[in-house]
Amino acid sequence: MNRFTSVLVGLLLATALTFGADKASGQSAREAIAAANKEFEAAHLRGDAAALSAQYTENAQLLWEDREIISGRKNIEAEWRKDMGGPGRKAKLTTLEVEQHGDWAFETGKFLVTAPDGKVIYDGKYICIWKREKGEWKIHRDIGNKNTPA
Amino acid sequence: MNRFTSVLVGLLLATALTFGADKASGQSAREAIAAANKEFEAAHLRGDAAALSAQYTENAQLLWEDREIISGRKNIEAEWRKDMGGPGRKAKLTTLEVEQHGDWAFETGKFLVTAPDGKVIYDGKYICIWKREKGEWKIHRDIGNKNTPA
Repeated sequence: MNRFTSVLVGLLLATALTFGADKASGQSAREAIAAANKEFEAAHLRGDAAALSAQYTENAQLLWEDREIISGRKNIEAEWRKDMGGPGRKAKLTTLEVEQHGDWAFETGKFLVTAPDGKVIYDGKYICIWKREKGEWKIHRDIGNKNTPA
Repeated sequence: MNRFTSVLVGLLLATALTFGADKASGQSAREAIAAANKEFEAAHLRGDAAALSAQYTENAQLLWEDREIISGRKNIEAEWRKDMGGPGRKAKLTTLEVEQHGDWAFETGKFLVTAPDGKVIYDGKYICIWKREKGEWKIHRDIGNKNTPA
């Protein structure tokens, strides 16, 4: 094998490994989601809709119960502002599973919201589709529902 | 480049292309989901819970509103049987998007169920996580909710 060929083989091998490793560069979905969910809980408690909506992609969608699909980060921010009704409500996210494939992942989890007096406002579950854009994991689709009838 | 090196380069290139093509072998998620949803609609109309549950993976989960998570194909079959309440109800699935990554895909869609007299029983949306197992696309996670309060 001459020098040129060695370099070529090296490049091709690198390419094969890059694709074969499922684009493993950057933070794993599991780590990123754990960190994002901690931030989410803090932002929810202080009623910070801007911080919550910053966790979504520009073209994200909320598929929430009792309303039509809500598209785009601006509308998502408005929806979260309405939904939280100000600061003081504690949101607890419990991730049940994360399945990552390249720049995409889905998360299933539980979502519990309580009032300052401890009363349960929302007890439900969700699936979020996460997407890695420019190295950052963002929520692309967000769907959930309650565990018991209202 | 000698003969051995040519073969080696060829093999490496093939590997790179195989991974780069996102494991494009087998039926695409979009085609498979379109076919499965047609079967779903027919099975729903005849109240066939066994046929509906056959569309799920062995370890699938329903994350449906107003109930806890339901796991496993047997429990899913029982839940569908209860949910459909016998034959005669028309279910219309409208796929909004399919995003495939290797052996995984997610689908967002609309779900409309009507009684024989045309009365709307359920008007909602869903996300299904599909998984390709042994070449067959199956629903692995199924979550949805209504568009308007009951």
